[in-house]
Amino acid sequence: MYGVILAGGSGTRFWPISREQSPKQLQEIVGPGTMIQNTVQRLLPLIPIENIFLGTNHKQAVETLRQLDSYNFVADHLIAEPCSRNTALAIGVMAQLMIDKDPDAIMGVFPADHVVTNSEAFIKALQKAETIAQNGYLVTLGIPPTRPETGFGYLKQGTTIENMEGAYHVDRFVEKPDNHTAKQYLEQGNYYWNCGVFVWKAASILKEMQQHAKNIYSQLETIVGCLQTSQGKPGYQELNKKGCDLFSSLPSLSIDYAVMENSSQVVFIPADIGWNDVGSWNALDDVYEKDSSGNIIHGNVLAHDCNNSIIQGQKRLIGVLGLTDTVVVDSPDALLVCSKERSQDVKKLVEALNEKGHPEGKQPSTVKRPWGSYTVLDSGPSYLLKRIEVLPGETLSLQSHQHRSEHWTVVSGNAEVVRDQETFHLKTNDSITIPKNAKHRLGNSESDLLIVIEIQFGQHLDENDISRFEDRYGRC
Amino acid sequence: MYGVILAGGSGTRFWPISREQSPKQLQEIVGPGTMIQNTVQRLLPLIPIENIFLGTNHKQAVETLRQLDSYNFVADHLIAEPCSRNTALAIGVMAQLMIDKDPDAIMGVFPADHVVTNSEAFIKALQKAETIAQNGYLVTLGIPPTRPETGFGYLKQGTTIENMEGAYHVDRFVEKPDNHTAKQYLEQGNYYWNCGVFVWKAASILKEMQQHAKNIYSQLETIVGCLQTSQGKPGYQELNKKGCDLFSSLPSLSIDYAVMENSSQVVFIPADIGWNDVGSWNALDDVYEKDSSGNIIHGNVLAHDCNNSIIQGQKRLIGVLGLTDTVVVDSPDALLVCSKERSQDVKKLVEALNEKGHPEGKQPSTVKRPWGSYTVLDSGPSYLLKRIEVLPGETLSLQSHQHRSEHWTVVSGNAEVVRDQETFHLKTNDSITIPKNAKHRLGNSESDLLIVIEIQFGQHLDENDISRFEDRYGRC
Repeated sequence: MYGVILAGGSGTRFWPISREQSPKQLQEIVGPGTMIQNTVQRLLPLIPIENIFLGTNHKQAVETLRQLDSYNFVADHLIAEPCSRNTALAIGVMAQLMIDKDPDAIMGVFPADHVVTNSEAFIKALQKAETIAQNGYLVTLGIPPTRPETGFGYLKQGTTIENMEGAYHVDRFVEKPDNHTAKQYLEQGNYYWNCGVFVWKAASILKEMQQHAKNIYSQLETIVGCLQTSQGKPGYQELNKKGCDLFSSLPSLSIDYAVMENSSQVVFIPADIGWNDVGSWNALDDVYEKDSSGNIIHGNVLAHDCNNSIIQGQKRLIGVLGLTDTVVVDSPDALLVCSKERSQDVKKLVEALNEKGHPEGKQPSTVKRPWGSYTVLDSGPSYLLKRIEVLPGETLSLQSHQHRSEHWTVVSGNAEVVRDQETFHLKTNDSITIPKNAKHRLGNSESDLLIVIEIQFGQHLDENDISRFEDRYGRC
Repeated sequence: MYGVILAGGSGTRFWPISREQSPKQLQEIVGPGTMIQNTVQRLLPLIPIENIFLGTNHKQAVETLRQLDSYNFVADHLIAEPCSRNTALAIGVMAQLMIDKDPDAIMGVFPADHVVTNSEAFIKALQKAETIAQNGYLVTLGIPPTRPETGFGYLKQGTTIENMEGAYHVDRFVEKPDNHTAKQYLEQGNYYWNCGVFVWKAASILKEMQQHAKNIYSQLETIVGCLQTSQGKPGYQELNKKGCDLFSSLPSLSIDYAVMENSSQVVFIPADIGWNDVGSWNALDDVYEKDSSGNIIHGNVLAHDCNNSIIQGQKRLIGVLGLTDTVVVDSPDALLVCSKERSQDVKKLVEALNEKGHPEGKQPSTVKRPWGSYTVLDSGPSYLLKRIEVLPGETLSLQSHQHRSEHWTVVSGNAEVVRDQETFHLKTNDSITIPKNAKHRLGNSESDLLIVIEIQFGQHLDENDISRFEDRYGRC
């Protein structure tokens, strides 16, 4: 069995921890481990790492691979999408890739940012689904609802299937219901949450796409033919210009809408696996243990007389007093305080931030780069102070700046610095100045993290003031 | 008329903006201007700056003078107390000082951290009080209550005074009442808030202290004799060792308890002056204009659907959503979120922080020093990053550190740096390294602010790792 993880979410509802440039699946929303790490971990008892594939936006490709390094995830099993076109196209591309390798391939499809608390039941359900999928069915998991949830789609249980105990036809798919309807579904007992986990033969889903989503299906071979190894390291797969254009031109459809709701081959297995889509901050109530007053409190927090509240702190001290049903989420550059019942609307708050041009809506305070990360610590009229972290063995591009000089001080590890014709080896406590227009490069050839404090000087301090001459990540 | 401002408050109820080391009167709780600046400003139409005296804790002396620089406040009119002994002793010392200068002196006594919105009525009330005080009375202002406040003491209106229209004897002083009693006071109309503003002849209050607070009175001359100009600049007045010991040994009593409640000479003037003691965050409701949803919002805040809430932000972005009757106060190193009705209990939260040893309970993120301030921006296992601001004309002590080296980079202004036998003139963008044990000094001899980024290196990074050889502020 092959595993396909779809990591396309933006997770604006988990602002300020997740941001457009560092979405939910890459965060420790339900730690330890980021959501994508936990998703991979969950599959390993059934699917070996070399059989796992992953689709994500090209902007998250490097960071995603970094997070999966310790799992020995195969870099070229990551397919970087040039833009988001929902699940139908992503799944089609993956199925086409797989059938080219193995005509009998069975693939499981998994969202990257959900929680499953009962791993054993999850694996059992997948094994059962695999057996059914061998017969050409499109199998999905149906989660027995535990509350009248209005945020999910539902599957209505249909007739049983001959010789397949515990598997059912889907009578119909239903969109997110209103509160009254959701209560009825819960009482009736024959409605299940549609959790977005699918198991099928690659050949089966392609056959159904050919019938129900012809415009997508007809381009899949061409798109897969446009895949190439990314420039620089690490070598994930990305589309060439032609492939990007084609991909972008195709409709953005969910696999549910494009195929599942129309196919006669769909069956589902009720699967009580402790699933949660962790759709907004209040979902933490379902996945974390609460204190005796119903609170979930993480970080450097002192709480007095709070009830049913969620307090997610970090390094900064948070004092909370007399709160009820309130969510407080702190981050270095942005803070959220909201009533728990409005958690879903954090998305709207972020949209408003973006409209008003607040960078904190999209960009995290620590910005990930292929070589590591940087964090702005302070700024003044003509200076900018950053902490730069360079991962072991990594190196920034050979670059120059027209409008700023830079002053670097190594505070941890050892740096290899190229400045014009010279190379310097700096150890902790050493400094160097990089004048305007000097060609320079910062690298870490050792096995420990390198931390550099950078002070930029200039009248125009802008990330775009950069000329790249060489870059191992193909950013020239 | 002389003015005596008593600046003794700690203001823990305004955490995290006010802290033990940077109390309420030095903050812009109701800006523009800090509370002590606004208190001075309010007196100037009646009392020239050279007639204003100020009592405060010695730890706040330099910063207080700094804040009053632009008012030309006379430095040696600041009396620095070695510890807090409440108002009776502070007033006694001031009265003794004054009578030595001017036997007929009339002094007004004013808390440093209250708000008065009707300045004109305030000045008129003081003028009237001055006239009455000429006759030997101890005059206080009574504020007509506007709500059944349980947080203040009250004055009960007594009989009128012959030939003094609008002045009354005080029938009795009453402590903070319970809610029921406070409502009765409001209905009856003959109770007034006791606001802590007094006007009297220095001779009158001393005479009454002689009678009702003999143990304090008997030491006043000795204490005043122990006053001396502080070492280093600026030259405020402080007690010598003998004076400190004597001061500390005296009882901590309020002037109300020690004198006013016992004296037959007390009269009061009803004064509708828009007074507010700004005792906790929810008091901002009474002094700021609210938006159409009843919110008070300052700083970098995006608010959706909030009601009757107080959001005090700073540089960091705050997103708030669906809050009601909630207080959010952000600061660089600590955050408060509390229900408005629990504002009074912020004090308890801070006590708990202090018990648990959180430095954020007492120390602000930007630490004021006689020469300017420093702010910790980042730290790691063996480094500490600070922004140091040195005021024009100021200089740090000549010092050395046993356990750390320091690396300085000037990011704004010009620095004069002494390192062992050498002197360096650094301009913006220049750096210098100070090795362990090197005697060094950082100064700003120019008229612009100097900003230096300091990186400390070492295994023991501690403010106490300092040997001072010379210091213009007397800290050797």
